[in-house]
Amino acid sequence: MAKEIERKFLVNGQEWRSLVEDRIRIRQFYLASNEGRSVRLRISDGAVATLTLKFGLRGRERDEFEYQVPLAEAEEMMEFAIGRVIEKTRHHVSHRGRLYEIDVFGGELRGLIIAELETPEDVPASELPAWIGREVTSDPRYYNASLAHSDDVPEAVA
Amino acid sequence: MAKEIERKFLVNGQEWRSLVEDRIRIRQFYLASNEGRSVRLRISDGAVATLTLKFGLRGRERDEFEYQVPLAEAEEMMEFAIGRVIEKTRHHVSHRGRLYEIDVFGGELRGLIIAELETPEDVPASELPAWIGREVTSDPRYYNASLAHSDDVPEAVA
Repeated sequence: MAKEIERKFLVNGQEWRSLVEDRIRIRQFYLASNEGRSVRLRISDGAVATLTLKFGLRGRERDEFEYQVPLAEAEEMMEFAIGRVIEKTRHHVSHRGRLYEIDVFGGELRGLIIAELETPEDVPASELPAWIGREVTSDPRYYNASLAHSDDVPEAVA
Repeated sequence: MAKEIERKFLVNGQEWRSLVEDRIRIRQFYLASNEGRSVRLRISDGAVATLTLKFGLRGRERDEFEYQVPLAEAEEMMEFAIGRVIEKTRHHVSHRGRLYEIDVFGGELRGLIIAELETPEDVPASELPAWIGREVTSDPRYYNASLAHSDDVPEAVA
């Protein structure tokens, strides 16, 4: 079990692209989501499949349990996805010793770019990189579950 | 992935008790259940924890995926149970080469006994053991999800 504290931001400009340290292609979908919980399956680089159970209120802190599952079974379960299968490329960028994950969405969510910062600290705005835009942590349109279901692509401009 | 075809019956009398080959103490609970799917965690003999994802309509055939998870994490997840934690002792009895699982419920469901037969064959009534009672496979009161939620103990008498 891990406690997750995650902040989400929109992204300004393209400067971050020259800072990318590595990238992962991700396909992910929900197998269940109700009553303050979700069950998600993620396939990374078409090779590793991880089942994640999250409990607690959406937002900044929740209980999370992760288990690796066989790739072939993950692909079979894709037919049971609730909502869309999300496609995105996750880019890793470090700034002041903190890791930022920048998700560039594809498929129906093409155009959307979100940066995530996972840290137990309260990071002051002055320590965020310049390419970090408006914080959307508590904006329901940017919850992962909303992105899996909504017909509209939320705004991607900071 | 395994296809599961499962029939459920009430049980007549006590004769089956002398035929028991082994028994397992089970605690199980649901972590999610919606839209023709469920996520269940089962702890067997206080030692082995298994996460089971089931998809498809309730009744006789569904897709099932099982993963072992660390016992300590399973116990942590108990606080996120939807509905009650079911306690039962599962007894194994063979008859004509087929395995019957007889669940004797405890806790709030004390008094309830259900026999399950998992087989892809269509077993004729003449081949069922004498202690098998009324079939309740398609009676929603005996679905596992109902047993986890209902305030009433369904009838246990064949």
